[in-house]
Amino acid sequence: MKKTIFLTLLILNGLSSIAQESIDEQNIKLFYKKALTESKCYTWLEYLSNDIGPRLSGSANAETAVQYTKSQLERLGLDKVYLQEVMVPHWVRGEKETAYILNNKTKSVVPICALGGSVATAKTGLTAEVIEVLGIDELKKLSADKVKGKIVFFNRPMNPENIETFKSYGACVDQRFAGAQEAAKLGAVGTIVRSMNLRLDDFPHTGAQSYGDLPKEQYIPTAAISTNGAELLSTSLKTNPALKFYFKQSCQTLPDALSYNVIGELTGKETPENIMVVGGHLDSWDLADGSHDDGAGVVQSMEVLRILKNLNYKPKNTIRVVLFMNEENGGKGGAKYEEVSKQKNENHIFALESDSGGFTPRGFSIQADDANVKKIQGFKDFFEPYLVHSFTIGHAGSDIGHLTSKTIVKAGLKPDSQRYFDYHHAANDKFDAINKRELELGAATMASLMYLIDQKGIELPKSN
Amino acid sequence: MKKTIFLTLLILNGLSSIAQESIDEQNIKLFYKKALTESKCYTWLEYLSNDIGPRLSGSANAETAVQYTKSQLERLGLDKVYLQEVMVPHWVRGEKETAYILNNKTKSVVPICALGGSVATAKTGLTAEVIEVLGIDELKKLSADKVKGKIVFFNRPMNPENIETFKSYGACVDQRFAGAQEAAKLGAVGTIVRSMNLRLDDFPHTGAQSYGDLPKEQYIPTAAISTNGAELLSTSLKTNPALKFYFKQSCQTLPDALSYNVIGELTGKETPENIMVVGGHLDSWDLADGSHDDGAGVVQSMEVLRILKNLNYKPKNTIRVVLFMNEENGGKGGAKYEEVSKQKNENHIFALESDSGGFTPRGFSIQADDANVKKIQGFKDFFEPYLVHSFTIGHAGSDIGHLTSKTIVKAGLKPDSQRYFDYHHAANDKFDAINKRELELGAATMASLMYLIDQKGIELPKSN
Repeated sequence: MKKTIFLTLLILNGLSSIAQESIDEQNIKLFYKKALTESKCYTWLEYLSNDIGPRLSGSANAETAVQYTKSQLERLGLDKVYLQEVMVPHWVRGEKETAYILNNKTKSVVPICALGGSVATAKTGLTAEVIEVLGIDELKKLSADKVKGKIVFFNRPMNPENIETFKSYGACVDQRFAGAQEAAKLGAVGTIVRSMNLRLDDFPHTGAQSYGDLPKEQYIPTAAISTNGAELLSTSLKTNPALKFYFKQSCQTLPDALSYNVIGELTGKETPENIMVVGGHLDSWDLADGSHDDGAGVVQSMEVLRILKNLNYKPKNTIRVVLFMNEENGGKGGAKYEEVSKQKNENHIFALESDSGGFTPRGFSIQADDANVKKIQGFKDFFEPYLVHSFTIGHAGSDIGHLTSKTIVKAGLKPDSQRYFDYHHAANDKFDAINKRELELGAATMASLMYLIDQKGIELPKSN
Repeated sequence: MKKTIFLTLLILNGLSSIAQESIDEQNIKLFYKKALTESKCYTWLEYLSNDIGPRLSGSANAETAVQYTKSQLERLGLDKVYLQEVMVPHWVRGEKETAYILNNKTKSVVPICALGGSVATAKTGLTAEVIEVLGIDELKKLSADKVKGKIVFFNRPMNPENIETFKSYGACVDQRFAGAQEAAKLGAVGTIVRSMNLRLDDFPHTGAQSYGDLPKEQYIPTAAISTNGAELLSTSLKTNPALKFYFKQSCQTLPDALSYNVIGELTGKETPENIMVVGGHLDSWDLADGSHDDGAGVVQSMEVLRILKNLNYKPKNTIRVVLFMNEENGGKGGAKYEEVSKQKNENHIFALESDSGGFTPRGFSIQADDANVKKIQGFKDFFEPYLVHSFTIGHAGSDIGHLTSKTIVKAGLKPDSQRYFDYHHAANDKFDAINKRELELGAATMASLMYLIDQKGIELPKSN
């Protein structure tokens, strides 16, 4: 019975209730039921998080994760499962960082972590006076003599007023990403950035940074400080602007390493040349196992294909799961996937990414032309029973951001965002921060949208 | 400036943007802003949870919580703050319970907790064979000789398929509430009920139970077992139906104790005789500090009045916060409040309860006639920017359930329910399970509905 084509099955079995509930509604109900009663995603994530652990690009763990997810996809009986080679940056943190505030004779240890891509300090560490700014704009207004020889402390907090926390992140993250390159231009010797975290706590949050076009000899070490640490430093500076800050980190960038995107697919039965992608990224930062970022997206994407295959669903279009490597510090996996796709002249019609945590799904962020935004918003009623309500225009995801097929429609799963930045890129982004049902509901929500797009297609541009 | 009447202020200041944003929209935005940037609710809850702790009715902690919340309400400068006497049941758990499965020669310790209101076992504990049933219906089909002298094990799990977990709770909780009285009628010597928890873990979840009309001498001890414990017991029974179960508990019911509802109000400026209540319950179970159940509802309700008072809002109707005592094991606070209200011939037009956890608010459960359901659903657009979407007909809350004013409209805050039963009535319902923003968003959502009803009134029945 399991192997009977389930659409037919529903048509046969569903006659009595068909007036009340469409085939689409019944299938979506089935996706949620399967996700909530028999999903594998929580077990997969437990393994990825607790057995494998942190998966920074180029690390042995990242390689183990590639092999593990490939083997799990192979067990699903998909039409194809394969790896796609990609060279990725290989940055390593080295010894745990140390830092303290030297305020007259008081030495206050504060939690920091090097930002991804940063250079090390001297082996003995770096000590300097500190100049606090609320962002790059404020820094740029300073004359070089105010900055020269100092550590620039970027302390703009995330704005708590936004309901969607990603908005507050977007308005802050330039300090982390480009703070060091801008400070170096003014002669700073290092930078410290307030962690992108709405809570006050003791976790420093790492993340990517870039020196941009700076010549290598001008690279300066850069690190994130916990929000409590940032508050202490800021308060201390108010009473003693001449205090000194010490930090030591021994991170380094090794030669690029060979790694892989992990890909599996159900080949389309009507228009196999039309490809629909669902994915997340397999790499994580190194401070924790990255259960939310983005272990959740990985296992949810795998679960979408598990559910469809388990129901013996025959997609019209090719449905492909892609577990991208290196989203966190380079985006090489996404770029490579697009490059190969272009070479093969592939046509992607739809891409769905989950990279905003494994929390209760609230909707989708849709990146498409008006006609397709409207089309997806037209699916709202299908999601109402599952309390998925928010269908807004916005960024869909960084990995699928690389895809450039002419008519591609993109969407990102939008989970509840309140807790995301409690964990993002920090040592507490661990398996115990995941709720099984929230994770599963996300997977079912993704399966439902993949199904609806497969069934109903996307709107093609009208030929002129 | 703080003391300027804020509606007027907005009218004066808001002229330029008035076409885009109504006064109501601006005020609601202000409520959310205040909740997210300066709320007291998280600090209050921290004190209630970490400094006071579990607050079972009749306990010293419950009394401390009464005094603490009263003093905090007094600081807000409300028009009235007072206590309302109420006699409450006083049940105490006594020593920590012990239990094990005796399967041939293997003794497996399992986590249990006495249900509220249960009697103790003999001092040496109780040992008996076990009969497993999936609920009261199944039990009732058994002949007395199958049950006599045994421990009845109610093991119907919560259904994971429901999106709203309260639905699954509602379909299971009769086993806990009335299992013992039904089992006793058939000669059982004790009952064990599977914890109302969707997860598999080691926390037993307590809760109220009632012996109904049984004569006292027929009372049998009853306890909850953790879900992992229930799974183990069930599996063990399959291979050895003759295994024995041992448990020991020393709980007892003391004489009723004097306690209080805590009440504060902003007196209405136009129709003070029309009362709007917002509330939660101050008592909690004894296994933890009850941060979600219902510390969250208490501090959110207090926060509603703090926000309104801080903005110098002058309500048309009287807005009253009521912190009810004894929701968990008797409902005496709600009943007393209604009794006194009836004596005073008070007219309640609206009541809002928060007693479903401090999670991200998703909407309201509305208990009213069609016209008022429609009226509240008509407010949907005001809540859209805050991702509050669900306005459904349903149970509003047990404390306000007692209110019987002729034209009263009731609503319950509906937070995301996925994690609620991970903590409900268990030792992990603690402050660290609370997210500050989620709690604050709930308070702002409640303030917004209170404001809208105050401004727009309720629909009165058309006179025939």
